[in-house]
Amino acid sequence: MERILHFERAEYATRLAAVKAEMSKRGLDILLISEPPNQNYLTGYDAYSFYTPQMAIVALDRDEPIMITRGMDAASSRITTYLSDDSIRGFPDSYVNSTERSAYEFIAKIVQELGSEKAVIGVEMGGYYYSARAHADLVKALPQARFEDADLLVNWIRLVKSPAELVFMRQAGLIGDAVIKRVIETAEPGVRECDLAAAAYHQEISGTPEFGGTYNSSVVHLCIGERALAPHSTWTDKPLSNNTVINFEIHGTRRRYQINVSRTLYLGKPSIDYVKLADIAIEALNAGLDSVRPGQACSEVFAAFHKVLARNGIEKDQRIGYPLGIGYPPTVAERTASIRREEKTVLQPGMCFHMMTGLWLGDQSVTITQPFAITEKGCEPLTHTPRTLIVK
Amino acid sequence: MERILHFERAEYATRLAAVKAEMSKRGLDILLISEPPNQNYLTGYDAYSFYTPQMAIVALDRDEPIMITRGMDAASSRITTYLSDDSIRGFPDSYVNSTERSAYEFIAKIVQELGSEKAVIGVEMGGYYYSARAHADLVKALPQARFEDADLLVNWIRLVKSPAELVFMRQAGLIGDAVIKRVIETAEPGVRECDLAAAAYHQEISGTPEFGGTYNSSVVHLCIGERALAPHSTWTDKPLSNNTVINFEIHGTRRRYQINVSRTLYLGKPSIDYVKLADIAIEALNAGLDSVRPGQACSEVFAAFHKVLARNGIEKDQRIGYPLGIGYPPTVAERTASIRREEKTVLQPGMCFHMMTGLWLGDQSVTITQPFAITEKGCEPLTHTPRTLIVK
Repeated sequence: MERILHFERAEYATRLAAVKAEMSKRGLDILLISEPPNQNYLTGYDAYSFYTPQMAIVALDRDEPIMITRGMDAASSRITTYLSDDSIRGFPDSYVNSTERSAYEFIAKIVQELGSEKAVIGVEMGGYYYSARAHADLVKALPQARFEDADLLVNWIRLVKSPAELVFMRQAGLIGDAVIKRVIETAEPGVRECDLAAAAYHQEISGTPEFGGTYNSSVVHLCIGERALAPHSTWTDKPLSNNTVINFEIHGTRRRYQINVSRTLYLGKPSIDYVKLADIAIEALNAGLDSVRPGQACSEVFAAFHKVLARNGIEKDQRIGYPLGIGYPPTVAERTASIRREEKTVLQPGMCFHMMTGLWLGDQSVTITQPFAITEKGCEPLTHTPRTLIVK
Repeated sequence: MERILHFERAEYATRLAAVKAEMSKRGLDILLISEPPNQNYLTGYDAYSFYTPQMAIVALDRDEPIMITRGMDAASSRITTYLSDDSIRGFPDSYVNSTERSAYEFIAKIVQELGSEKAVIGVEMGGYYYSARAHADLVKALPQARFEDADLLVNWIRLVKSPAELVFMRQAGLIGDAVIKRVIETAEPGVRECDLAAAAYHQEISGTPEFGGTYNSSVVHLCIGERALAPHSTWTDKPLSNNTVINFEIHGTRRRYQINVSRTLYLGKPSIDYVKLADIAIEALNAGLDSVRPGQACSEVFAAFHKVLARNGIEKDQRIGYPLGIGYPPTVAERTASIRREEKTVLQPGMCFHMMTGLWLGDQSVTITQPFAITEKGCEPLTHTPRTLIVK
């Protein structure tokens, strides 16, 4: 079977070495990786199979990770990872949604097979795919092991993208631009909201003639009219009416590397006050982006952004940025650095963020955002659509 | 703000009463509901916000559930639930992805406010959105409470759909038929796999002229050529070639009620052996469906299905069915009854399942499936596309 690998073997080796170095530093013998983006990062594994238990095991004294999935998904390990046969394991289907047996017992047996019953084992305690019961089952099955919280260990390493990853981030950005264009073309009074969403999805998945797209980690947001005040709304069947605010967030996703970007589209003629609000949002966003450079703390970027808002009497306590990279549901955000008031993380070249002016004030709202990568000197936008209020 | 509610208040009241009755039976004072489909079922809440902590609290002695989300998502509670203002709570943004504070401390404070510090509290230990750390933080913040595993308590109640829910399941089925049609029309040698996927997504989201669609809980699967052997693969940028097997799984989703359905599309002229394999798959599927009626155990349906395979020398250990209903990522399957060899759950009118013949044998595979509802007398198909191998 032909393998589909999107990076050189050397790239995976570098990633694994960085993870092992951090494990050594923390005294971990074994790292159990339940988060799909972390599994993808270290092995290449890619399939929509993470709704059943799956685990990548990194052992300090083993060359390759082991990838454990449901039996039928071992085929995806063989196609999408670089792993040798002995590192690809599948559990019988009787473990799936069983009330009698736990797939984590199967996983624990493989830890024992590695001679690591008494090991110090790192687990991703705060991960989306590591339930309270998963942890309880593992602890019970490995009574002599010591468990340590290693949540975000891999995420912090993923935060800085390699040149090869940045290639995909830029391609994702080009797809994002195509999606924005498609949304603007499609939105008209009378078009059903679901048909506008359908056009956005079509473009996200189709991508560009050069770079095919794929599914995103979240959903297209179409926050329209009254629902514009609910930031994570989707859409209805209703036709668009004139004089309506459409806050939309769309994505470009290339080989699981994803950018998010928002714009506000005003159908009709906006009021002078509304245009003024949008201008403030754009000025704040640009001030934030202008302040981006290696060595700057996230809090300093927030301060540059917020200074513009404060000068206009607007207070915003929400974070204004999160990291972008490998996206699997439910989110692309890596749960590490946020751009916000108190965040001390220092920017480095290769990090990618989504900076968001999302203002929801009384009955008015505007969302104009920018995904970007940090370069040696400053900030490289990953999409190229102008940062303006779109009026149609 | 106008509320968007898809069911009568009486329907929500019936659901809540059923959950409270089960809580009483188990001696639970409080139920903490972290699973998005269960939150939607009990309150109507619908937004793509569950990547940050959110919780519905049902207290035996309180009329309404309380819905807790991130502060900015309280707007979605006000729009999509029937809850009064006092039952809608939001936590400050400083809790989001914080390494210093936990949103579960905020949630625990609301439990204390209910006078329930010493309560018996049910939690969904095996849920997708209840991490090992979420549980640890709650236990720490409520040292006098007793925690019980109440995973699937709501899911088992959801298993039987009401007449009003079945209306949406049927509409979802009609959308599914439209998507299958669109895939067949679009697939041609030379078309990129991503463009075929894009067409499927477009139809899923657009729906039909009568019933707009929405996002599904999973992804479109296009398991093509060699990747046909990997059941949970997606797609590539490659153009389709002639003489290719396309196993596709698509969805119809209506107001979060979702059906899944698969077909195999053969581009070109299949071999006699392959057609024979497809015929066996269809005969097994039909035998399984014919055996469906209230009072029958899941294991008996499996036996009827498997008898056809066994007669043809084929052994299948995987489950052949899972429940359908409210879909949120990562899956619509409710983690309750599976149609498989040892499952004793007895079928009742109103339950909905996806029955799957997925055969992956050596280098051949075929996937022809049927979503259905159980009626008073037997089985009502939710999609109406004929169960055949599609050759184009």
